[in-house]
Amino acid sequence: MYNFLENILHYLLFFSSVHTLTDSLFSTSSGFTNYRGLLNLCIVLLVLSNARVALENLLKYGILIDPFVILGYVFREPYHWPCIALLLASNVFINVCYFIELALSSRAISERLGVLLHVVNCGATLIFPAGVILVVHPLPFLSSLTLGYYTSLFLKMISYACVNRWCREKAYAPKRRKTLSGVQAPSASQLNGTAEIAYGDSPLQHYPENLTLKDLYYFICCPTLCYELNFPRTTRIRKRFLVKRVVEMLFMMQIIAALVQQWMIPTVQNSLEPFMNSNFSVMITRIFKLAIPNHFIWLLFFYWFFHSCLNVVAELLKFGDREFYKDWWNAETVQAFWQTWNVPVHRWGKRHLYVPMLKWGFTKFQASVTVFLVSAFFHEYLVSVPLRMFKLWSFMGMAGQIPFAMLVARFLHGKYGNMAVWLSLILGQPAAILMYVHDYYVLNR
Amino acid sequence: MYNFLENILHYLLFFSSVHTLTDSLFSTSSGFTNYRGLLNLCIVLLVLSNARVALENLLKYGILIDPFVILGYVFREPYHWPCIALLLASNVFINVCYFIELALSSRAISERLGVLLHVVNCGATLIFPAGVILVVHPLPFLSSLTLGYYTSLFLKMISYACVNRWCREKAYAPKRRKTLSGVQAPSASQLNGTAEIAYGDSPLQHYPENLTLKDLYYFICCPTLCYELNFPRTTRIRKRFLVKRVVEMLFMMQIIAALVQQWMIPTVQNSLEPFMNSNFSVMITRIFKLAIPNHFIWLLFFYWFFHSCLNVVAELLKFGDREFYKDWWNAETVQAFWQTWNVPVHRWGKRHLYVPMLKWGFTKFQASVTVFLVSAFFHEYLVSVPLRMFKLWSFMGMAGQIPFAMLVARFLHGKYGNMAVWLSLILGQPAAILMYVHDYYVLNR
Repeated sequence: MYNFLENILHYLLFFSSVHTLTDSLFSTSSGFTNYRGLLNLCIVLLVLSNARVALENLLKYGILIDPFVILGYVFREPYHWPCIALLLASNVFINVCYFIELALSSRAISERLGVLLHVVNCGATLIFPAGVILVVHPLPFLSSLTLGYYTSLFLKMISYACVNRWCREKAYAPKRRKTLSGVQAPSASQLNGTAEIAYGDSPLQHYPENLTLKDLYYFICCPTLCYELNFPRTTRIRKRFLVKRVVEMLFMMQIIAALVQQWMIPTVQNSLEPFMNSNFSVMITRIFKLAIPNHFIWLLFFYWFFHSCLNVVAELLKFGDREFYKDWWNAETVQAFWQTWNVPVHRWGKRHLYVPMLKWGFTKFQASVTVFLVSAFFHEYLVSVPLRMFKLWSFMGMAGQIPFAMLVARFLHGKYGNMAVWLSLILGQPAAILMYVHDYYVLNR
Repeated sequence: MYNFLENILHYLLFFSSVHTLTDSLFSTSSGFTNYRGLLNLCIVLLVLSNARVALENLLKYGILIDPFVILGYVFREPYHWPCIALLLASNVFINVCYFIELALSSRAISERLGVLLHVVNCGATLIFPAGVILVVHPLPFLSSLTLGYYTSLFLKMISYACVNRWCREKAYAPKRRKTLSGVQAPSASQLNGTAEIAYGDSPLQHYPENLTLKDLYYFICCPTLCYELNFPRTTRIRKRFLVKRVVEMLFMMQIIAALVQQWMIPTVQNSLEPFMNSNFSVMITRIFKLAIPNHFIWLLFFYWFFHSCLNVVAELLKFGDREFYKDWWNAETVQAFWQTWNVPVHRWGKRHLYVPMLKWGFTKFQASVTVFLVSAFFHEYLVSVPLRMFKLWSFMGMAGQIPFAMLVARFLHGKYGNMAVWLSLILGQPAAILMYVHDYYVLNR
């Protein structure tokens, strides 16, 4: 028996052929396509090269992280008071908006006068804080936050005025269309927005029941820019979820601040010299060098703001719609990216700018371009006013998205389109940052 | 009709609900898992960060690439003649091996004496070139190539001797096993290797027909280390395929040489100082910094040698088995990597070391360890002798694979095992290179 097994083993091991007629795997004729492991290689290389950069940074600069620096800036300098005062002053605009709507609903003023008053009020919402900041010139960082708040207030008040006007149009309009076309006019519940899927204990609101200060302030606090009479609500505040998001929020804020102090600021400072001398090839390496930390910080910021912060606010307000972002990381066109990365702004632009423009007879292309240009204006507004410097880099960066989007849509598809989107994100921001820092430095030193 | 459409449009656009009860995509409750785009981000970041490094390198060093430097080394220095003389001298060992086999087949000498003569001849094949190189000390690079050739010759002659001995054992042995177990002894065609799938015009060879110098030299030239009486053959030389591989071979050789000159040598030179001062943290960053170019060059070298060069040789010799490598890039264990990246050596180790050891009663683990240690010996042999420096870094690097393989197999699976394999490849080589360069520098300056 042992001999038998040995015989088989001997035969199998020594006389089974070692060589067979085979192609090499890299030859196309082999039909082999499994290069999955190379993706792991990419990840390992990325981690390694960044570990090296981080270690070099530490050896060169030591630890620059100081959590109290930021608090110190905020509390020690006298410049932050204008920002807090401005935040408090925003209540004036909110209340004016509310009383215009109240007057409109009771027909105390005409629709036309109402539009005019809203335009004046919303215009003031943008111009007043900008004027204060230009004159007082507080810390640019705090000023930019304040202007961001005012911008969202501006967008929210426009949405509030529009929706209330549509409600009046529907509620008070003669029902002529019904007889004409046989189409039923929207029922009362349909008129009032997401009636069917609204949650919570409170009964559905109908116009003009919604015209209360409480309702308006709820909308101002909510993480959305589009007003509706009945928002989808959750039934309760999930404590585990809330705690997780709050911890994320506090923890990531520290990480972001630390990365900015340790990695961004030294890199930006090192980059100033080649920009001063307009040494083009060194400028390019500096943009590349800044691109990596900037992009990581932007990714962290994205998660921090759009997932952690907005979910905390929504959870506290029992606000049900958490779609603050879609899967922009898979976007294969520039347009898809802008439609998915910031859903609140995208929804506002679509509802209150793009669709009305289509209704007024503009083409889709014209409407898209307008949305981009308005967005470009606000990007510039949030940067130029705090820096007191009107260089249009932000505006041009956003406006440049239009031809770039057309090029990508025309020539790159699928994976390559996605890579082009990433590339524009990774390189566009550091280029703009270095432009602004350079100009600010030239202007102020 | 227009009113009808307008009515529907108005209804759809303004009163379809903007908000719905939705989870954020990052919340686990959303069930969303499509992060495909992030892989594209990884690739873009890798390309970008290496583009930056390449640009910085160019700005710092200018162009260091000089294709004639290498040719100059080879032709101008007198030190390359020993290597060429050694290559020619190898014919002596081949012929000795042939005549031992001839004597064995005609029973002019006993099997025992044959083994002794083979051991002496094979031993001399390793010791003689090493002795010449240690005494004459030619260029380390050329010496290493020469020793590599002698190592493959050593392995091939062992395989040749073993296979011929097995043939004699089978052909002249009494057929006692047949009667004992009922198992048929392998038929003549089975005995002679891959008879059934051999190609080409020549009829199948049977022992001792194969004992010709032509057959032996064909085996010495073939891209395999395992002898068989009948190799699978292709019917013709595919000219398109051959031209492609030759172009690849010449082109990639230039690329590899350029990368070594432009990227490796300055990095290694910069790394010497921290190694001299044993500044540990700077040493780590230098290993990381060297790891990326080294790994790229290694990947290029792999393709160049195992795909382009070996396929050129095989195509010219109409050698049919092109499995010079398997998909090692997907290897999820260290063992799988060593079994797949260098198939000729792996096959030799399995056929002439691992399996015989199992037959002699050793355990699988003992056999594996022996294969690793023999491989470690040859790694050391190929590096230490040309450098005239016996530091055992290579040996320890290979021997260290054994506990590393056990750790990876125990704790990491799937994707993480694959990453660990990559990591050891990426970091192990530059660490060993810097050790050797450092020691060589200390010894010679």
